[in-house]
Amino acid sequence: MPSYQAPLTEMRFVLHSLLDSAEHYAQLGYEEATPDLVDAVLEEAAKFTESVVAPLNRIGDEQGCRIEQGQVITPTGFQDAYRQYVEAGWPTLAQPVQYGGQGLPYSLNLVCAEMQSAANHAFAMYPGLTHGAQATLMAHGDAALQARFMPKLVSGEWTGTMCLTEAHCGSDLGLLRTKALPQADGSYRLQGSKIFISSGDHDLAENIVHIVLARIEGAPAGTKGISLFLVPKLEVDDDGKLTGPNGVHCGALEKKMGIHGNATCVINFDGATGHLLGAPNRGLQAMFTFMNAARVGVAAEGVAAAEAAFQGALAYARERRQMRALSGAKEPEHAADPILVHPDVRRMLLTQKAVAEGGRALVYEMATWVDIGKSPSASAEAKQRAADRLSLLTPIAKAFLTEMGFEATSLGVQVFGGHGYVAEWGMEQLMRDTKISCLYEGTTGIQALDLLARKVLGSQGALLESYCAELAQYWLAQTLPDTLSPLRDQLLSQLQRWGDLTRGIAARAQANPDEIGAASVDYLMFAGYLVLAHQWLRMALTAHQSPALDADFRQGKLHTAHFVFKRLLPRAEAHGALAAQNGDSLMAMSSAQFR
Amino acid sequence: MPSYQAPLTEMRFVLHSLLDSAEHYAQLGYEEATPDLVDAVLEEAAKFTESVVAPLNRIGDEQGCRIEQGQVITPTGFQDAYRQYVEAGWPTLAQPVQYGGQGLPYSLNLVCAEMQSAANHAFAMYPGLTHGAQATLMAHGDAALQARFMPKLVSGEWTGTMCLTEAHCGSDLGLLRTKALPQADGSYRLQGSKIFISSGDHDLAENIVHIVLARIEGAPAGTKGISLFLVPKLEVDDDGKLTGPNGVHCGALEKKMGIHGNATCVINFDGATGHLLGAPNRGLQAMFTFMNAARVGVAAEGVAAAEAAFQGALAYARERRQMRALSGAKEPEHAADPILVHPDVRRMLLTQKAVAEGGRALVYEMATWVDIGKSPSASAEAKQRAADRLSLLTPIAKAFLTEMGFEATSLGVQVFGGHGYVAEWGMEQLMRDTKISCLYEGTTGIQALDLLARKVLGSQGALLESYCAELAQYWLAQTLPDTLSPLRDQLLSQLQRWGDLTRGIAARAQANPDEIGAASVDYLMFAGYLVLAHQWLRMALTAHQSPALDADFRQGKLHTAHFVFKRLLPRAEAHGALAAQNGDSLMAMSSAQFR
Repeated sequence: MPSYQAPLTEMRFVLHSLLDSAEHYAQLGYEEATPDLVDAVLEEAAKFTESVVAPLNRIGDEQGCRIEQGQVITPTGFQDAYRQYVEAGWPTLAQPVQYGGQGLPYSLNLVCAEMQSAANHAFAMYPGLTHGAQATLMAHGDAALQARFMPKLVSGEWTGTMCLTEAHCGSDLGLLRTKALPQADGSYRLQGSKIFISSGDHDLAENIVHIVLARIEGAPAGTKGISLFLVPKLEVDDDGKLTGPNGVHCGALEKKMGIHGNATCVINFDGATGHLLGAPNRGLQAMFTFMNAARVGVAAEGVAAAEAAFQGALAYARERRQMRALSGAKEPEHAADPILVHPDVRRMLLTQKAVAEGGRALVYEMATWVDIGKSPSASAEAKQRAADRLSLLTPIAKAFLTEMGFEATSLGVQVFGGHGYVAEWGMEQLMRDTKISCLYEGTTGIQALDLLARKVLGSQGALLESYCAELAQYWLAQTLPDTLSPLRDQLLSQLQRWGDLTRGIAARAQANPDEIGAASVDYLMFAGYLVLAHQWLRMALTAHQSPALDADFRQGKLHTAHFVFKRLLPRAEAHGALAAQNGDSLMAMSSAQFR
Repeated sequence: MPSYQAPLTEMRFVLHSLLDSAEHYAQLGYEEATPDLVDAVLEEAAKFTESVVAPLNRIGDEQGCRIEQGQVITPTGFQDAYRQYVEAGWPTLAQPVQYGGQGLPYSLNLVCAEMQSAANHAFAMYPGLTHGAQATLMAHGDAALQARFMPKLVSGEWTGTMCLTEAHCGSDLGLLRTKALPQADGSYRLQGSKIFISSGDHDLAENIVHIVLARIEGAPAGTKGISLFLVPKLEVDDDGKLTGPNGVHCGALEKKMGIHGNATCVINFDGATGHLLGAPNRGLQAMFTFMNAARVGVAAEGVAAAEAAFQGALAYARERRQMRALSGAKEPEHAADPILVHPDVRRMLLTQKAVAEGGRALVYEMATWVDIGKSPSASAEAKQRAADRLSLLTPIAKAFLTEMGFEATSLGVQVFGGHGYVAEWGMEQLMRDTKISCLYEGTTGIQALDLLARKVLGSQGALLESYCAELAQYWLAQTLPDTLSPLRDQLLSQLQRWGDLTRGIAARAQANPDEIGAASVDYLMFAGYLVLAHQWLRMALTAHQSPALDADFRQGKLHTAHFVFKRLLPRAEAHGALAAQNGDSLMAMSSAQFR
């Protein structure tokens, strides 16, 4: 069983050296978020995660959740760990001070969330979804509703969910059927059934606040008739006191591939009282605001999975001895060499390291843009730039990093051989748990359409051009050592190609919109490798420019950057070539010809 | 839950049209294996698999195996299904007539095995491993031992295992410690513990015959001191009667990612009586003879997984309605279009279809080479050619088809979205079950070393050159329609590249043997895509030349061949580029620099 250790040196490197968080936080008015405080928070978070959250990962998988006498029971230890989590004040870290939060930056909380997800994906989803519900309430609820629900959501005494999916509609929310009947007092009564509700019901908190998409009676069909509601499991009076059940029931728990410790529920609303969030029929837009932030969180899950798998596989590769190095025995005093000597084992480990560390740099940078969006001190121009970057990069990070995170866990199993397939070592659980990240909050296919159709072509290329111009300008302005300048050339040529590729698809899509779907996933993966390479070049340059850092750490960064450009970036070539093709080979088949 | 339907039309196409099995079987003296008999066997096998084996797939996953009072109990229904399997004579299909077998070709049995594996991977492993034990006994046992053990192995009343792995040695069998003490009567007493023994103990048969690697006391260290033994669970007298326990115990069952219905055991040998197979200290060579055949079987598991995932995903893509086609509503009378209209869903389905059908063509062709090797009628020259082809293509097929089979199951989950992640639809089980095929019988990394170091470079390129020359000659001799000749050009250019790539690696390996390991997996994947493309071009040409076949079937083959050359073969480009690089970016890191 790999015992997760929060990679504090890595996290500090990205926050302090790469992103200059001291300057970033000071500019945004987070004066208390000094490097010392950041380090102290990370150390405490690491301690809590390693000692309380990580030890429950396997038991959560083995036991899963169950329903006893109508009550959802979480695995042994989850309740106690969650209580400690609340008592230590972790839920409040980046929440508004007015509701009892500590008012620290979003980006700092994301680092803690990454730790929890790496240590115990299923457990981390309980607080994770609460943050989503809070953000939605803060953005779209009125002051009275916020006053009523925020304090206990902030403290973590209550948790939250997002209720979108129904049995017949997932990606296509326009089809949803849950009904909301207006009441005389301005509230609504909700009727309908939602599925796949993560953290939907459990025994960790005394109340659960559901954010629900539903259709007000008489609303237009399709996406234009969807509204957003807050529906508590237990009713709450104006003073925030619980007054009794609210017609919200867990109908069933799903049996699923992984994240067994998280209760994935069918939630039935039987005349439950709901409160409108935002304007009627504007629920989908309200939801999307929130979903972008949630998707950054899911991207971080990909990083977390890669990190956990890397830690497990690296430790095993150093201990496990099988065969001799092809180039001759490296440790002749033992019966065999550690498998770390084998080039293909190194290929797998370096791929994991590249995803974990490069993905981390990307996700943390995106989190700084979320900080800017939330900060009252940031200029409108800075906010717009941050929003534009997030808009473009969120689908890339969500889909690419979860796909790569999954690959990293699969490689983790391969490094272990047959031992990877048995539960004992925890590697197979990482694969099963992280596969969900490629599916929820929009599948890889949906992210790819969001990127290409909505973000890139939907902005007539403006979002992409501005980002690529900024990257090119940045790299042309840097003075690079001889060892890194060929990497810059490679990156700049791929940036050029990104533009060409986009213009080609746009031209084809004019004639046939199916060309967008045909190119979309390869286009996204192309972009993902490029963005990952950009992050690695930045890390390598920063390591090169930071002689005070540990020599092995610096050299590890420089070597891995070369690995990324030599062994991963060429995959972008292949995806680019595929995205540049027309979709004829996909569309030619009639349904009957498939079989 | 996808209900598996044996793809008889596909299977017949490969056997009859592509491989001309009538001629092949007649030449080898399998006179009874006429097309009519082949079809009758396939239909019965399909019926049995669909009605008896497939319905136990989910329950096998849910229940798994357990130990009760020292006895391993298989999931509900497995015992009865296995009894029916034996009563219907399925185990005897391709077994020697002298021991009660039907003497039909190996290749015909492989088709049946593919069905079983697609329907229920865990169940299929019980008879699958028995065939391995039989083959070893036939190849290396003396006549008395064969007479004592073969009849009940052939009938299926007894099953078999392969006991290789120990806790500290998997890929590196030279490290194994299980001991064999010679006895006065010529037998041996075995002492030691084996792990990961598939079908190691169970309640399906009255006896289990273990094929065990062990070290005779005083034997040389390493691989040169390993011998092979037959060790029955219950002792058997000269008349084949059971006489009592033999010191073979199941110490524990592994908890694992998938194949829950198969008992993966720790098997302890406590002074168990064993019978030497082959010469002392030549056990590893004897095992390898057998492992090549077993690896063809595992390659077929990759095909089976892709087939099952494709069937599930295609059915769902036709039924599930989400969103409109980007090019406009295709079924405006419904609220949304079936997801089969979406190009990216088609990309996933076509990838699955390409792997299932192209992989099937490859594996069945390899099975015809096994037929040749087993046939007394084949010439020495034909046998040598078949052995050479098998030697080269087995690691490619095993690793490439299991990796692609796994990808196909993962795509199956993606087609289903969140529904793919829950147990109800069976898609996630396919992923979990088939991941083992990338690990057992040698991981992908081990296959890649076998291919590049042992087969290709170990034969000084002779095996590869002869195969590539044959393919080139074959394709240059064909008259192709205009639509297919560009595909031939593409294939020939990749064949050329295969040679160049190999010569480049050979040259680098002269200076540094680690270059072999650094290139190996990308080299294997390059070869895999090439071989898959070759099979698809053959199928396309055969479909083109067979006007009597159903029009949709033919067109489906032609379209899919174009998809393979346009969308999958470009991946070979990327793998080739990676394999052509030197290994510096892998080897530069010191252990401490990894983290």
